[in-house]
Amino acid sequence: MDSGGCGVKAAVAGASGYAGGELLRLLLAHPGIDVGTLTAGSSAGTPLGDHQPHLADLADRIIQDTTPEALAGHDVVFLALPHGQSAALAAQLGPDTLIVDCGADFRLTSAADWTGFYGGPHAGTWPYGLPELPGQREILAAARTIAVPGCYPTSVTLGLFPAFAAGLVEPDVVVVAASGTSGAGRSLKPSLLGSEVMGSVSAYGVGGAHRHTPEMVQNLSAVAGGPVTVSFTPTLAPMARGILATCVAPASPGLTAAGLREAYQEALKGEPFVRLLPEGRWPATAMTLGANTAVLQVALDERAGRVVVVVAIDNLTKGTAGGAIQSANLALGLPEELGLPTTGVSP
Amino acid sequence: MDSGGCGVKAAVAGASGYAGGELLRLLLAHPGIDVGTLTAGSSAGTPLGDHQPHLADLADRIIQDTTPEALAGHDVVFLALPHGQSAALAAQLGPDTLIVDCGADFRLTSAADWTGFYGGPHAGTWPYGLPELPGQREILAAARTIAVPGCYPTSVTLGLFPAFAAGLVEPDVVVVAASGTSGAGRSLKPSLLGSEVMGSVSAYGVGGAHRHTPEMVQNLSAVAGGPVTVSFTPTLAPMARGILATCVAPASPGLTAAGLREAYQEALKGEPFVRLLPEGRWPATAMTLGANTAVLQVALDERAGRVVVVVAIDNLTKGTAGGAIQSANLALGLPEELGLPTTGVSP
Amino acid sequence: MDSGGCGVKAAVAGASGYAGGELLRLLLAHPGIDVGTLTAGSSAGTPLGDHQPHLADLADRIIQDTTPEALAGHDVVFLALPHGQSAALAAQLGPDTLIVDCGADFRLTSAADWTGFYGGPHAGTWPYGLPELPGQREILAAARTIAVPGCYPTSVTLGLFPAFAAGLVEPDVVVVAASGTSGAGRSLKPSLLGSEVMGSVSAYGVGGAHRHTPEMVQNLSAVAGGPVTVSFTPTLAPMARGILATCVAPASPGLTAAGLREAYQEALKGEPFVRLLPEGRWPATAMTLGANTAVLQVALDERAGRVVVVVAIDNLTKGTAGGAIQSANLALGLPEELGLPTTGVSP
Amino acid sequence: MDSGGCGVKAAVAGASGYAGGELLRLLLAHPGIDVGTLTAGSSAGTPLGDHQPHLADLADRIIQDTTPEALAGHDVVFLALPHGQSAALAAQLGPDTLIVDCGADFRLTSAADWTGFYGGPHAGTWPYGLPELPGQREILAAARTIAVPGCYPTSVTLGLFPAFAAGLVEPDVVVVAASGTSGAGRSLKPSLLGSEVMGSVSAYGVGGAHRHTPEMVQNLSAVAGGPVTVSFTPTLAPMARGILATCVAPASPGLTAAGLREAYQEALKGEPFVRLLPEGRWPATAMTLGANTAVLQVALDERAGRVVVVVAIDNLTKGTAGGAIQSANLALGLPEELGLPTTGVSP
Repeated sequence: MDSGGCGVKAAVAGASGYAGGELLRLLLAHPGIDVGTLTAGSSAGTPLGDHQPHLADLADRIIQDTTPEALAGHDVVFLALPHGQSAALAAQLGPDTLIVDCGADFRLTSAADWTGFYGGPHAGTWPYGLPELPGQREILAAARTIAVPGCYPTSVTLGLFPAFAAGLVEPDVVVVAASGTSGAGRSLKPSLLGSEVMGSVSAYGVGGAHRHTPEMVQNLSAVAGGPVTVSFTPTLAPMARGILATCVAPASPGLTAAGLREAYQEALKGEPFVRLLPEGRWPATAMTLGANTAVLQVALDERAGRVVVVVAIDNLTKGTAGGAIQSANLALGLPEELGLPTTGVSP
Repeated sequence: MDSGGCGVKAAVAGASGYAGGELLRLLLAHPGIDVGTLTAGSSAGTPLGDHQPHLADLADRIIQDTTPEALAGHDVVFLALPHGQSAALAAQLGPDTLIVDCGADFRLTSAADWTGFYGGPHAGTWPYGLPELPGQREILAAARTIAVPGCYPTSVTLGLFPAFAAGLVEPDVVVVAASGTSGAGRSLKPSLLGSEVMGSVSAYGVGGAHRHTPEMVQNLSAVAGGPVTVSFTPTLAPMARGILATCVAPASPGLTAAGLREAYQEALKGEPFVRLLPEGRWPATAMTLGANTAVLQVALDERAGRVVVVVAIDNLTKGTAGGAIQSANLALGLPEELGLPTTGVSP
Repeated sequence: MDSGGCGVKAAVAGASGYAGGELLRLLLAHPGIDVGTLTAGSSAGTPLGDHQPHLADLADRIIQDTTPEALAGHDVVFLALPHGQSAALAAQLGPDTLIVDCGADFRLTSAADWTGFYGGPHAGTWPYGLPELPGQREILAAARTIAVPGCYPTSVTLGLFPAFAAGLVEPDVVVVAASGTSGAGRSLKPSLLGSEVMGSVSAYGVGGAHRHTPEMVQNLSAVAGGPVTVSFTPTLAPMARGILATCVAPASPGLTAAGLREAYQEALKGEPFVRLLPEGRWPATAMTLGANTAVLQVALDERAGRVVVVVAIDNLTKGTAGGAIQSANLALGLPEELGLPTTGVSP
Repeated sequence: MDSGGCGVKAAVAGASGYAGGELLRLLLAHPGIDVGTLTAGSSAGTPLGDHQPHLADLADRIIQDTTPEALAGHDVVFLALPHGQSAALAAQLGPDTLIVDCGADFRLTSAADWTGFYGGPHAGTWPYGLPELPGQREILAAARTIAVPGCYPTSVTLGLFPAFAAGLVEPDVVVVAASGTSGAGRSLKPSLLGSEVMGSVSAYGVGGAHRHTPEMVQNLSAVAGGPVTVSFTPTLAPMARGILATCVAPASPGLTAAGLREAYQEALKGEPFVRLLPEGRWPATAMTLGANTAVLQVALDERAGRVVVVVAIDNLTKGTAGGAIQSANLALGLPEELGLPTTGVSP
């Protein structure tokens, strides 16, 4: 299955984590990319089946150490590593390899924001892997390095860019989002134990502390053409996958419900992976489980003077690995939609 | 267990539903109230154990039809009925019986709001069963009828009344709340099937359409002493119980994080059922499962100029049945805290 | 996506249910079969997106009434209907159409068993759609009608046929299986509400009452070449998908752990959809979510003299829709594995 | 709440774990026992609220180190510690203190079984804390040390002792049980992460390897008056609490369904915490959540010649902490039922 000889060969660094597993799940079904070397940190030397038992076709593959040597010789390298490891690796991989970083290192343009939210020196800025942003497809087609967006910023940016592009809202956004636990990775923290998360919704990173906040501000400000304020509150929901982001912004004067809907239909026309639901239906994360699709719906709350946009994605697919492959397809000269499912797994 | 002869005898109408079951769970452990007649609609004639198998001590009790005759002769009658049935019953129960309505019929003061959100004529307004509101304990102590607040308004009002009372925020609130499925009752809708809700968070009633919105506006406006705007978005989370409400409002000029915390500590001092968490910890609904407690935390997001308050309650306990009993205790001249757990069941 | 002109055109009757939705999910990705007409009962006339919002590419398709006319003109018709409706439809569809029945009507060979467990007259017996059974691939290659196995019998038969074929166990089996709620379909029963199933495991159909029991007996007796007794207890687990079946049988005299493992390796060699895990690892339903794979492991409990086989499948995929397509592939002359995923979606 | 001066003072060692938390939850509501010192290992020095935020009334209590000095001076000490730590502590606590060990150290009578299943030397045998076993209440009333049963053995023994006591079954038992994740404690293992356990049922300890197996054999053999064989398979279900045990044994010749039911009714008559459901209803773990109750049902499968008993308990309540307090009540001369809930929290 991974020996097709399609010509494009991909390595995955961080293959034993959740993002790495999702990259491999999608690449196994990708008709234009073959799975090459798999690497990881502490699980190097063990078979992939010990960590990703759902990837039956790769169960016997031995994970290698994450080194430039192991990753060399691939057309594309996907990095699903903790923050801070990508820059050094990338420097040694050379310009012939497309490097797609699922981590945060190269997402922000502001060094001050980087240092304020992540600490340490800023590694730089790479082309931002959200093809749906105006003008971004051209940039990605020419890219040799790609910074994959964070999962929350993916959902919020897709939900609000049509409103800001059309000037339908004021630049003062409140976002509350619920995420499945896989967004936190396979970290051994008590708060992520099944006994703690099942049957419970909890808040974290409240008050603007979450690291994805400046990325949302960056994206929305770029579209709005001016500074946008974002109050972002993430919450953890008892499910493994999915993000439901509720995005609320003051409606611009004179906006009507029909005008709002029309603007979204117009902005999303032809987008293969962003889907505005029919009127009267609202997003559920289950609609997108395993799919590279963002599902959204809009409302105008006239009493409160607010536009409300609700967006559902699978945080591991469109929010990470699927988004990464979508951008890689563009940079590799493949059809943007190749190998990316638009059908979810439900119920 | 329900034959103690404490003197106060309670009937529960709607005993086969979730709110009715929670009322009975709490009353079984209440040292000052005995369980009397149980009534319901379509399940009349069957033993309670068919519907509430967790209430072992009442398993053999036969449910009666919900009629004034069945409910007569009790010191207190708890109504856990669909909207529109309470007024007629109450009219026939006479002034010697305390009537505590867990439904919406008598919550709103504005007939226009009632008709706009619920349809049909407004039944009236009863004393509002949220003892934590300034001045409300005195009103409830003298009440013979009580309108128990909705579950969402309970969480949002408890979370924001200290901020409005102290003038810390502007009257322009955004609320996004996640609720467990029991909030929808035992209704046989496809969207409430386990297969649909497990593994999924979904939005509903978006854009100001949820019926609890005017109740929040009413409460917060009363505390603020002027009109408050509320943009409210409810979401459904894959858990049976619990509400996590994230409440966001513009910070008043000059507000500091220390000042915010201090004001909440001051406002909640002595409140038996509202608990401000230590700094650095954030609410999870699991902290309150089965308890009559609201757990909250506050933050000042200086970048976004917003106060963020996160509140967790059990929608069936503090959000419905526990809140009902707390108010009934006051009206019956019993200690407010009697029979109400402050300890949750976790993990 | 469904207009490829591959030559094989499929209709799905019962398209608004869970089995129908899973058939469509798999067929949308099947390179050799196009999706034709969709039919259902009470949801006829509505768009599929109202019922299967995860199937974005078919969202606007209007569901038709389930009639012979609507289903005519297809190369293959998949029936995902309540018991008792298949025979009449099949009679009118003619011999040119392959009919694949996901219901129970034609699974049993014994009319007495049918009447005893399902009631009413026996409709007949069709070729049994479990290709892994010895000799069954040849039968299915020539079939024009196929009876898709029940989900529980699929798991139990795949788990135990190697043991019975090799004479490793005595014919006296105890099976306890946990199923996700989708196994019960989209039925509006209180016991299937999310509030009831989340956080709870429950038993049902205990004492040999479950309708899948005679089907297990039939399959295992055929392999064993003599009567096999099965004590089967199903349980409902708080998840939407998946079956974990624990199958226990007395070990034949002289059996060793090594001999047991070897026999299973031998029997399953080359099977594309049945996977024996490496020693020391045990099945989890998450390993197979969305995949057409059965994952199993075996143990010899020497103290108790028992062989224990644990099998995990996705009840909707290998247990229903995937199994149906696997058998249909054979009958249509397509490669057995075509369009069927062996990769699960996890976490 | 914990200062009542009832005379009986309890210390809890292991207060930051799940068993310790449940002991404290129950003791807080126990009218005859006050909560004294709380101790733990690595969390010593921190407030209990950091680990058990649901226990609001003890949130500020500082956890002490688990030493004999800290535990001295209490009427009863509950030990909720890892295996192997109880013996040394108990030796230093003196005969005036009732010691109730929730761990496994003193449960088994056979040193060979201990060494075979747990490794290392056998610490000894203490009176077994299952009051429902014939003759055990008298033993516990005189005990100064108590070994609390394992959670699985509690469920299985309660389910089968009536059958063995009345000679209704052959001594050859198959048990498959599903447990919530809290049974594994707060251990930081990848397999216990929420992302792994949600949406999945998995097997572990298959083939007679689980340490609770010899304890079941010991209990059932004692009741049967001869050796009983047990094939035990535990599974992990996506819920925090609860055990559902399905126990299957060959029916003795001549047994009838009516005779079976009658024998159970007789054997369980007057038992405060074991409840046989009405005919036609089957146990769900949700029926017992937070309650000290075992709920069971029986069936005779005449076709398979098997008695099937299904038992539901809350593994942390009746399966651990509630069972511990029930036995402690007896040893302290308090009413057996004191402070122990028979009402579950549902839905």
